[in-house]
Amino acid sequence: MFETGHFATLWRNMAQRLGFEPELIESDWRRGADPAAMEKRLAEDTNHEIKAVAVVHNETSTGVTSRVAEVRKAIDNADHPALLLVDTISSLGSIRYEHDAWGVDVTVSGSQKGLMLPPGLSFNAVSDKALEAAKASSQPRSYWDWEDMMGPNDSGFFPYTPATNLLYGLREAIDMLEEEGLDNVFARHDRHAEATRRAVKAWGFDIVCMNPDEYSSALTAVMVPDSVDPDALRRIILDDFDMSLGAGLSKLKGKAFRIGHLGDFNDLTLAGTLSGVEMGLQRAGIDYQPGGVQAALNYLAETAGSAA
Amino acid sequence: MFETGHFATLWRNMAQRLGFEPELIESDWRRGADPAAMEKRLAEDTNHEIKAVAVVHNETSTGVTSRVAEVRKAIDNADHPALLLVDTISSLGSIRYEHDAWGVDVTVSGSQKGLMLPPGLSFNAVSDKALEAAKASSQPRSYWDWEDMMGPNDSGFFPYTPATNLLYGLREAIDMLEEEGLDNVFARHDRHAEATRRAVKAWGFDIVCMNPDEYSSALTAVMVPDSVDPDALRRIILDDFDMSLGAGLSKLKGKAFRIGHLGDFNDLTLAGTLSGVEMGLQRAGIDYQPGGVQAALNYLAETAGSAA
Amino acid sequence: MFETGHFATLWRNMAQRLGFEPELIESDWRRGADPAAMEKRLAEDTNHEIKAVAVVHNETSTGVTSRVAEVRKAIDNADHPALLLVDTISSLGSIRYEHDAWGVDVTVSGSQKGLMLPPGLSFNAVSDKALEAAKASSQPRSYWDWEDMMGPNDSGFFPYTPATNLLYGLREAIDMLEEEGLDNVFARHDRHAEATRRAVKAWGFDIVCMNPDEYSSALTAVMVPDSVDPDALRRIILDDFDMSLGAGLSKLKGKAFRIGHLGDFNDLTLAGTLSGVEMGLQRAGIDYQPGGVQAALNYLAETAGSAA
Amino acid sequence: MFETGHFATLWRNMAQRLGFEPELIESDWRRGADPAAMEKRLAEDTNHEIKAVAVVHNETSTGVTSRVAEVRKAIDNADHPALLLVDTISSLGSIRYEHDAWGVDVTVSGSQKGLMLPPGLSFNAVSDKALEAAKASSQPRSYWDWEDMMGPNDSGFFPYTPATNLLYGLREAIDMLEEEGLDNVFARHDRHAEATRRAVKAWGFDIVCMNPDEYSSALTAVMVPDSVDPDALRRIILDDFDMSLGAGLSKLKGKAFRIGHLGDFNDLTLAGTLSGVEMGLQRAGIDYQPGGVQAALNYLAETAGSAA
Repeated sequence: MFETGHFATLWRNMAQRLGFEPELIESDWRRGADPAAMEKRLAEDTNHEIKAVAVVHNETSTGVTSRVAEVRKAIDNADHPALLLVDTISSLGSIRYEHDAWGVDVTVSGSQKGLMLPPGLSFNAVSDKALEAAKASSQPRSYWDWEDMMGPNDSGFFPYTPATNLLYGLREAIDMLEEEGLDNVFARHDRHAEATRRAVKAWGFDIVCMNPDEYSSALTAVMVPDSVDPDALRRIILDDFDMSLGAGLSKLKGKAFRIGHLGDFNDLTLAGTLSGVEMGLQRAGIDYQPGGVQAALNYLAETAGSAA
Repeated sequence: MFETGHFATLWRNMAQRLGFEPELIESDWRRGADPAAMEKRLAEDTNHEIKAVAVVHNETSTGVTSRVAEVRKAIDNADHPALLLVDTISSLGSIRYEHDAWGVDVTVSGSQKGLMLPPGLSFNAVSDKALEAAKASSQPRSYWDWEDMMGPNDSGFFPYTPATNLLYGLREAIDMLEEEGLDNVFARHDRHAEATRRAVKAWGFDIVCMNPDEYSSALTAVMVPDSVDPDALRRIILDDFDMSLGAGLSKLKGKAFRIGHLGDFNDLTLAGTLSGVEMGLQRAGIDYQPGGVQAALNYLAETAGSAA
Repeated sequence: MFETGHFATLWRNMAQRLGFEPELIESDWRRGADPAAMEKRLAEDTNHEIKAVAVVHNETSTGVTSRVAEVRKAIDNADHPALLLVDTISSLGSIRYEHDAWGVDVTVSGSQKGLMLPPGLSFNAVSDKALEAAKASSQPRSYWDWEDMMGPNDSGFFPYTPATNLLYGLREAIDMLEEEGLDNVFARHDRHAEATRRAVKAWGFDIVCMNPDEYSSALTAVMVPDSVDPDALRRIILDDFDMSLGAGLSKLKGKAFRIGHLGDFNDLTLAGTLSGVEMGLQRAGIDYQPGGVQAALNYLAETAGSAA
Repeated sequence: MFETGHFATLWRNMAQRLGFEPELIESDWRRGADPAAMEKRLAEDTNHEIKAVAVVHNETSTGVTSRVAEVRKAIDNADHPALLLVDTISSLGSIRYEHDAWGVDVTVSGSQKGLMLPPGLSFNAVSDKALEAAKASSQPRSYWDWEDMMGPNDSGFFPYTPATNLLYGLREAIDMLEEEGLDNVFARHDRHAEATRRAVKAWGFDIVCMNPDEYSSALTAVMVPDSVDPDALRRIILDDFDMSLGAGLSKLKGKAFRIGHLGDFNDLTLAGTLSGVEMGLQRAGIDYQPGGVQAALNYLAETAGSAA
């Protein structure tokens, strides 16, 4: 059973091609996974045909962060044995996430976002329950088999040639995160996300994410009015200011653009980023209210030092 | 249908776990894939139940390079439609290989050997016939689907976040290979392999590979007498000279060690490498004939400049 | 004979310690070298006791760029044989400078500013006239002798071990400047300097440089009111926003701070820089007018694309 | 007063050009500074007109290491107040050197040899006596004034823009030397020098340095017979094996070549180096005895592990 959203949909497509027919909990893309709907559906599944609930922690396409701990609670409330699978690719190291405390069974992540590395490493955190399920399964698998990895890993080895350079980088990245302190890292991204939202609102635009409890601290997706072509805006910003913004994807194509503020990012990088957006709005001849950067700077200046 | 050898066996195991029951042409590990045996087996397969013939071009565990062009001929002689699949991971960019001219259907390779890069990229070259076979197949697949890759690749994109840093490195690696000229690159490795074999023979040891037409130009595996523990030798060489040699694998465990001479390698690197082995033999108290390095140097000096 | 200013003064001190007693043309530090005063003084020197006129092209301490071509004209108008010596350390590669066209005899520069390299290389451009003067001079010298350098340089060598790594970097830096085009490079810095001045004026502060013809395109020095401690402001900006601004030096100590915008710099870097200053002003509780960043952004947005 | 040798001569030339008329203790270039001759000359200088004794610790042109501690003793025996100045550019970090214990007044060095860094940093170690002498001197100086450096250095600053990148490198280089342990570093170079001399002697050539107490552990200069053109040999080695050897300089031009073995160097690098020389001898058609590499390997194998 999958939550909805761009990456959730991609994920479901992959599952379908492997022969599964997963169920999708349809929802507004402007909200995260809906724990109540999940609980209801799981409670109906008295035969326990649903094997797993899959959630994208931070949906990069919309800037919505699902409330994973509440999804866990929904499964528990329904007294359902489904595994909880979470994609943290764009959140790990930027947004608070607790694999153990939240009772997640499988967490997947990657090196290229909050861990500040080039793409090339991915990670799995796996609960005992998930390992048992994998063992019990008769599905054919080879490259993706956890057992093959866990044996060699115990003694510091890999069952294949690992991307050694990135492992050195990972050690440094973790040192950097620990030097700053994870609480400070998360608070820094929370501040930058709030500053970004203040800029967006000052410009007169809507945030894609409609639930403040689900605002993403890693990126902010911005709805534009029907009259605005966000891809033309993105092109102008790239050409004139050498800054590449994310496009709206799938349902949001042509309706939104995205501002990233994750990983190795500080107040002045954010100020430069938002300045690029505001100048792009002006150059694109879009109807907007000036002052977004100023609103962000006011908030950043008021709260500076609080996260260090 | 698979040839024999350490990596061929690993490969077969993976296939088995995915639900196939591939046939293995058993052979002496000291020889490459046997085109005659293959032709015979394929000729018997009048119902064309064999779908593909899989060969490791350069078997890293033994230093044996299979004669891929002759395997192609064997398939053709048997008038059999099986696909020809070749693993070139440890040969590409160091040993001559011709995907098109040799009529290979699928070639797989990696960045971390002859392309002189960190691990992290792999490559597929795929014939039209293999693409057709993939399309016609009903096997479930997702991540491994060529179609997903080929569409975006046409316009310079990837269906996922690619390992961008390595792509920059790949461009540089290809420039380096072309600057030297592929013929010179292959001749360089041929010379180094011959110099290495002269050293090994001067020491009084056998080359694992028994067929001179199948000597690997990327690495040389050395048989040691029963009285010699090759892993103790490797440990001494690592401790005293900071050089890590390859161990004998599977059938050759405890019977052989391996000397690599692939990728970014020149005459003096080889001289240093062989010196480390000869000094290790002396320090390990092994019964050997001194003079291996000298034999290699004589050959290198006689033939120097010929490959540039 | 030296113009005035912080670095001119340092330079004069060095000359004094080598046994010279150079004359200093005293001037307001908020203006560049005064061609009229120079011409008058040189005209009085009928015995030609003044051997050289030394000018700092871009005075880093004040953000004042002297009009070197006019200094040349002043010397010519006085029909005086003095050499013209120019320090371009903080201007070369960021502000237009013409050693030959402007008739400069000796230009000195360094790698660490507009050439975007680490510190470690310095450069001399020397006219035939200056070489003749050096040859005719009986002053003791060894390390600083141009002749020692010019001989080996002709064939690509150095009379000492050169800083080879930086020479590779220099080749890349020159490629980068030529790829952008020097005219575009200079226009880019002119735009950034104008945007910075608009921010400063919007905040209600004065530019140290009083002559618009002498505004530096490499950095802007900002006068602060007596009530403001610029070093406390700089400390807050460093602590809260991790940005290090230049202090006022010598006569300007405690009266000014400096904003650099030279070398590898684009619109969004400038936006980040000015945002750091404006947020610092707010956090320091300084009496200023908000809106400096906005003024800069308006100008940058209006003129974007014009320099590319 | 200067010892003799290529770099000592260069050094004297520089002094002459600065107005000094230093005395040179003429000697065979195949020996180091002669403490007995120095003591004799100093004893004659009853008026103490000699202000300093200048010695190159490791003369790179000849592979001769002067016995600095004995030079100190010679000065003391003569009861002479001359300062002792030592150039350690090619020895520091590779050959034992004790500025304080040996009573040296001024030691100069550089980053690009035993410290394993790119060229670009130089170092001075200065005794109180030398500082007093500098203060008392009326010679004009500016850039070279120790006082200017010592003040800012006390608080971690420089009186100019320092080569910051190299300072980071220096920290790492010192960590590497300390991790290995200086005693081990020096023993490693001693072993490599002895192995090199064994190779040279096996080839039938002479070491330039005639006094075993003065053999350099950083490089070995090799005399060639009159019939041999060492520069043609060096050219062949460069062309065929991509290895650049040092030429004979000044008095040794056309009579010697030099093999470096300093800095970041291990047994296998040395084996590669000597292999390149021996193969070059063969390819140049020079009359030599094969077996130099073998002799070196025998010694290295016998003594391996002893320095770690």
